[in-house]
Amino acid sequence: MAKIVHRRKVQPSAQELIEGILNKDKVALSRAITMVESTNSAHLEKANEIITGCLPYANQSVRIGITGVPGVGKSTFIEAFGSYLTSIGKKVAVLAVDPSSTISHGSILGDKTRMEELVKDENAYIRPSASGETLGGVARKTRETIILCEAAGFDTVIIETVGVGQSETAVHSMVDFFLLLKISGAGDELQGIKRGIMEMADAIVINKADGDNIAKAKLAKTEFNRALHLFPAKSSGWVPTASTCSAYEKTGIDEVWKTISNYFELVKSNHYFENKRQEQSLYWMMETINEQLKQRFYQHPDIAEMLMTTQQEVLQNKRSPFAAAQHLLGHYFKKE
Amino acid sequence: MAKIVHRRKVQPSAQELIEGILNKDKVALSRAITMVESTNSAHLEKANEIITGCLPYANQSVRIGITGVPGVGKSTFIEAFGSYLTSIGKKVAVLAVDPSSTISHGSILGDKTRMEELVKDENAYIRPSASGETLGGVARKTRETIILCEAAGFDTVIIETVGVGQSETAVHSMVDFFLLLKISGAGDELQGIKRGIMEMADAIVINKADGDNIAKAKLAKTEFNRALHLFPAKSSGWVPTASTCSAYEKTGIDEVWKTISNYFELVKSNHYFENKRQEQSLYWMMETINEQLKQRFYQHPDIAEMLMTTQQEVLQNKRSPFAAAQHLLGHYFKKE
Repeated sequence: MAKIVHRRKVQPSAQELIEGILNKDKVALSRAITMVESTNSAHLEKANEIITGCLPYANQSVRIGITGVPGVGKSTFIEAFGSYLTSIGKKVAVLAVDPSSTISHGSILGDKTRMEELVKDENAYIRPSASGETLGGVARKTRETIILCEAAGFDTVIIETVGVGQSETAVHSMVDFFLLLKISGAGDELQGIKRGIMEMADAIVINKADGDNIAKAKLAKTEFNRALHLFPAKSSGWVPTASTCSAYEKTGIDEVWKTISNYFELVKSNHYFENKRQEQSLYWMMETINEQLKQRFYQHPDIAEMLMTTQQEVLQNKRSPFAAAQHLLGHYFKKE
Repeated sequence: MAKIVHRRKVQPSAQELIEGILNKDKVALSRAITMVESTNSAHLEKANEIITGCLPYANQSVRIGITGVPGVGKSTFIEAFGSYLTSIGKKVAVLAVDPSSTISHGSILGDKTRMEELVKDENAYIRPSASGETLGGVARKTRETIILCEAAGFDTVIIETVGVGQSETAVHSMVDFFLLLKISGAGDELQGIKRGIMEMADAIVINKADGDNIAKAKLAKTEFNRALHLFPAKSSGWVPTASTCSAYEKTGIDEVWKTISNYFELVKSNHYFENKRQEQSLYWMMETINEQLKQRFYQHPDIAEMLMTTQQEVLQNKRSPFAAAQHLLGHYFKKE
């Protein structure tokens, strides 16, 4: 017995974690994700080994992005939606991309107690947003976590984002289907949802269609359906739709899933699905390269020192933006 | 006489071109723009000198972006709109951002004969899109051309883009007001306008509201006005509107200008105007840096050689996008 306890304290090897993940062991999965999220450079190598080992078993899930401003009921919706999915035999992983989650502002997953049912569900796995200072870093970690969850047998991956910053574009680039959650009436327009998100959405779901709200929600649905047909056609061939639900009363949830299933049927038959996934993979490779080239540039001590002055010269029309860029780049390439 | 001819063959100096531009000489302006567009590195230095000389006199115009897919009548609209503006005393420069214009596909300005009236108008200046292989390059040249036109006394700068590619985002980042030109009925949805453009627009103008088309155009206007209020609020405080016009019959053109004038009145009083311009200047500085860091990376002979294989490994799930990026970056930073 003492021997076992002792063994447990030894950090499992990458190979052991891979085996654990493939055996659908949630503890191994969580430990591997912790490696992926670590900023320790020794962990980075181990994380890469785990991911490489899991990659051949990944990619078998559907990836659904869910966004909406605080107050639309995202946590209640994901609780209801996730529970519905496990009830029809799905294995559901819920992740989040929220660079602000360190201060736990707006992130539903920062407060797991709001998803009591799903947390206890053995066919669900909930992981809060990775912490990190840059969206790029958080997004990268989430993207690799998707791979690990898929290798662990989760066939439906839900990625939640808070809907007010740059995160939606990042999430949009890592999911197959993008769902915008709204409520009827005023309020959510005022809460600063980013422009352009509506046109990214594959479905708009109007939540809180219950009690006195039903008529208003139905009206909003009609309005959105009318507006959606004015948007340019999507290259997926999919025509986005609006629907209503009450996550609280658990109504309309099955319809959301039906819409999503129809979408996957379409994009798998017209090959948009695999094309988009391939594009997304290359996009993330390029994006990572791009981020690191920039980081190295801006963290160069000389650039860090020159930047403020040069920006001021641009703002005072003493240098054109292009000449200012040349000025900094010239210095950087000479020094490197 | 012979002496004068001889003198004319000597290339004017940067200082002479600056003086010419400030004296509102269109020949000097055209020559300076040619310097800005040149790929010759000796010209680059001269171009920078000219721009630096013009910068203190720039920034006094309103910059209007106009987009719409081929077939909506952009050239006729700009002809009518530009002529209207000169008739009320404006000095109008018309530029284009269209990386594909070398093959003259879709660019209205490739075919100046379509804007007969404006071409002859002494208070108008029309310059086709700079040629170039990358959007970044073309966009940079256009942005610097705006500065030269403003220094030459043009108080209204119109930038036209074809509306089907990435160019709209670039144009959106260099103008104060963004106008989307459409026609009623089917057709233009099918012509591949990029999603997200509608949410960028400050106004939607439905052209060809003439003859049998009037009723359909009015209906489209109503539908768009209904849809536009569903969009999230703009940080400018401006509420985009839809209107109709007939560029052919020159009706509704004054209303478009009235809308634009109202916009400028609003954003100048709430200081959004100058804040956005400052943001745009810094954006273009960063964007230029970013472009050149990437260019240097991808043009490195080792990277060019490794890239294809690495991409294949990503697509075959042998490397994760992140590991692939690390692989290429590791090699690049070691070699540089």
